[in-house]
Amino acid sequence: MNMAADTLYLRIAESMAGQIRSGTLSRGERIPSVRTLAVQHGVSQSTVVQAYRTLEDARLIEARPRSGYFVASRPASLPEPNPSAPPADSLPVGVSELAARVMSLANAPGYTSFGAACPSADLFAQERVRRAVSRAAQRHRLSLCQYPIGPGDESLRKAIARHALRMGCHLDARDIIVTNSCLEAITLCLRAVTRPGDVVALESPTYFGFLEILESLGLRALEIPTHPRTGLSLEALQLALDTQPVKALLAVPTLSNPLGSSMPLAERRRLAQMLARHGIPLIEDVLYNDLCEEDDKRRAVRSFDTDGLVMVCGSFSKTIAPGLRIGWVDAGRWGDKLRRLKASTSGSQAVVLERAMADLLTQPGIEAGYRHLRSVVGARVDEARGLISEHFPKGSRVTDPAGGFILWVELPDTVDSLDLFNACLKERICIAPGRMFSATDRFRHCVRLGVGGRWGEAERQALARVGQLAVGLSRTRTSPA
Amino acid sequence: MNMAADTLYLRIAESMAGQIRSGTLSRGERIPSVRTLAVQHGVSQSTVVQAYRTLEDARLIEARPRSGYFVASRPASLPEPNPSAPPADSLPVGVSELAARVMSLANAPGYTSFGAACPSADLFAQERVRRAVSRAAQRHRLSLCQYPIGPGDESLRKAIARHALRMGCHLDARDIIVTNSCLEAITLCLRAVTRPGDVVALESPTYFGFLEILESLGLRALEIPTHPRTGLSLEALQLALDTQPVKALLAVPTLSNPLGSSMPLAERRRLAQMLARHGIPLIEDVLYNDLCEEDDKRRAVRSFDTDGLVMVCGSFSKTIAPGLRIGWVDAGRWGDKLRRLKASTSGSQAVVLERAMADLLTQPGIEAGYRHLRSVVGARVDEARGLISEHFPKGSRVTDPAGGFILWVELPDTVDSLDLFNACLKERICIAPGRMFSATDRFRHCVRLGVGGRWGEAERQALARVGQLAVGLSRTRTSPA
Repeated sequence: MNMAADTLYLRIAESMAGQIRSGTLSRGERIPSVRTLAVQHGVSQSTVVQAYRTLEDARLIEARPRSGYFVASRPASLPEPNPSAPPADSLPVGVSELAARVMSLANAPGYTSFGAACPSADLFAQERVRRAVSRAAQRHRLSLCQYPIGPGDESLRKAIARHALRMGCHLDARDIIVTNSCLEAITLCLRAVTRPGDVVALESPTYFGFLEILESLGLRALEIPTHPRTGLSLEALQLALDTQPVKALLAVPTLSNPLGSSMPLAERRRLAQMLARHGIPLIEDVLYNDLCEEDDKRRAVRSFDTDGLVMVCGSFSKTIAPGLRIGWVDAGRWGDKLRRLKASTSGSQAVVLERAMADLLTQPGIEAGYRHLRSVVGARVDEARGLISEHFPKGSRVTDPAGGFILWVELPDTVDSLDLFNACLKERICIAPGRMFSATDRFRHCVRLGVGGRWGEAERQALARVGQLAVGLSRTRTSPA
Repeated sequence: MNMAADTLYLRIAESMAGQIRSGTLSRGERIPSVRTLAVQHGVSQSTVVQAYRTLEDARLIEARPRSGYFVASRPASLPEPNPSAPPADSLPVGVSELAARVMSLANAPGYTSFGAACPSADLFAQERVRRAVSRAAQRHRLSLCQYPIGPGDESLRKAIARHALRMGCHLDARDIIVTNSCLEAITLCLRAVTRPGDVVALESPTYFGFLEILESLGLRALEIPTHPRTGLSLEALQLALDTQPVKALLAVPTLSNPLGSSMPLAERRRLAQMLARHGIPLIEDVLYNDLCEEDDKRRAVRSFDTDGLVMVCGSFSKTIAPGLRIGWVDAGRWGDKLRRLKASTSGSQAVVLERAMADLLTQPGIEAGYRHLRSVVGARVDEARGLISEHFPKGSRVTDPAGGFILWVELPDTVDSLDLFNACLKERICIAPGRMFSATDRFRHCVRLGVGGRWGEAERQALARVGQLAVGLSRTRTSPA
């Protein structure tokens, strides 16, 4: 991927991909001929040909000999999982041992892994990133031998403030604190607004890493019912705020992990208002916002916040360079507290990597890079959904996220996904069992499948194999034991 | 500084510097002639000349025309501060606002700063560090775009295990966890072995950063009397362990900050035994060990630990490259807990910087680099002590540390060092007032002076000026108001 390729053809391809994904162009529908589209956009036919080739590569359209181009048939579709219905009470958390085991295997050599939510290196502009790091080491060599003090390199904080405009957020660079990944930002936010024993509300299911942080800080998890497409149920959240001593809400309004749900724009505004009424802070993780295919779902809840209650946390690990470990936070009214906590907990970050990231963020073509990434992973997700429909047990359900590379599959409830996990391990395949994503055990029949990693024939076969193993388990379990 | 210059002359210079500092060669004493020493060491006279020039540059010896070389006159010596006598009870901590103010000024442009304990960039092998980073970016470019998982790059963990041999520690690379600076390692250790409200014992005075961590984790500080040369009073510690619910000891046995005290070898062994008897963990910060001029005080308490009770934390920010932000910990019996805490709190570090540090640690000449650094900062400390003797109020006391670049001055108790701090600020000089280093206010007449930063005529004059201001304040206060 070359982020500099911000050219016409990509924009045309992206626009058409959007129409396909939003359903404006239906699967199987004929699309305009090269000549028609060229006239329509006022571009050369060769530009349109290039756009169509990109869409073909992404398996979004297909050429049929002597008939023209058609939207690729949508993978046989399974229904969406049901909205979650966690218990109404908060729970202490204990998922870290299972999570640690899964994560160590998810990255072990020799395993085909759907266990992690990590995009593979080939999705990024490796050479561009390397050049940025080498250039920063050269230009800012003094920084390598100087103690960094303070909330982060100024050029990076300015670049992040500009970057946040894409999410509708008008941040002041002086309020931004650079962290060692988004995870650290979230840990610090939780430390700023809670004490051990406090109740934190989150989506259900939720990212196991959040549960691990809660566990390590002695916090209680209150899981809020969540719809696989539209995210947090605000009705359920309202009830929780009315009846429970919730100290903070931790949520991923865009492409939440593992559901891939994204809250509609109006709900985001409503959420901000609801929090303001109760004076409850939201720790908003915007890690995935740039991967979302729909503009209005990239907009952060923070953009509707008028009370300094939304602590917005992000990073570039899913979109630009996972290895630089640069996260950030603007903690609203808790800014001073966060700054002190960060300074006392782990000091500042390495300036050389901050400068490299600032460089990458301000290069032209970054927008095209996001679009390309969205289009490549979007195609993979489509393919994976097709394989799941084909090979997973009857009665399975799967999410249809508006971006990202994570799928959540609800298997027939006779299947325990821990059994499936163990069966898969025997064939050196790693998946993430549903239990990791809740303090309850109500997702025991679910699995998270990450398809951001390597993707080729071996992975396709492995994914089919996961389905076959699940079919086997579903049969074993339905027969009386 | 060029760490590769591990040549004969440096070794001779270092050996003689050691003899001077330990008092084997007294100040003012005549040292062997170039010819005699050349014969003695079996080296050329030009090598000895080079060694003597190095010692001259470091102001450790001086040439007198037609008389030969002499040990430079020792700076007029002030007495050492008294051992500290903190209250016997633990206290909640509240130093972070003062510390934050001092630290922001300590690094503000336009200030002459003795406020921070940061060595300046010119003390390090800048070009060597830059090359290591660029090489790592080139060789491990894939790592820039890959999610790092786990406790740290293996080559770095092996290099750290080898490095720890210098402190007498036989660590297993698999037990080492790489962190974002030593500070993060210490925060994680404290989180592993305490809960809010618990009592942590530490040296008195102690590094304000430790107090800030305790403050942020809701821990209580129990300050243990500490001798400015020999460190923690084990008798007082024994009493504390017998009478107080101490959950952990956090200490810097070598060149503790701010006292610069270093525990004698026998005390280190005794401390390990004492902890074992009580089953109390020691969080041992070995950040400064390589700066210590005396071999047996570089040895870590961990090397005497047979029960997995010593969690040893280090970094290379004071000795190799402050800007890489690489810390590490081997947490003994809490290894698994630490690994999980690190993973959930901030994930892994950037592999590219881990590789660069592994490279730097395994290059030849690193030992010579430490020696050179010790000799340069040793000369500065001598000079600073001289200026303090000359210009500070009568009755002042100053430490004589066995290495490092931090001095602790006890002023006449009529001087409040916060007043001195404010008076200095008006002249754009920053010092660190004693109150930052204790949960009590018993160091209000003390100041910490760091001389690891820039060092030249302006700094010498500024240090003299601090003394003059203190003299002024001591006079104001002694007259009845």
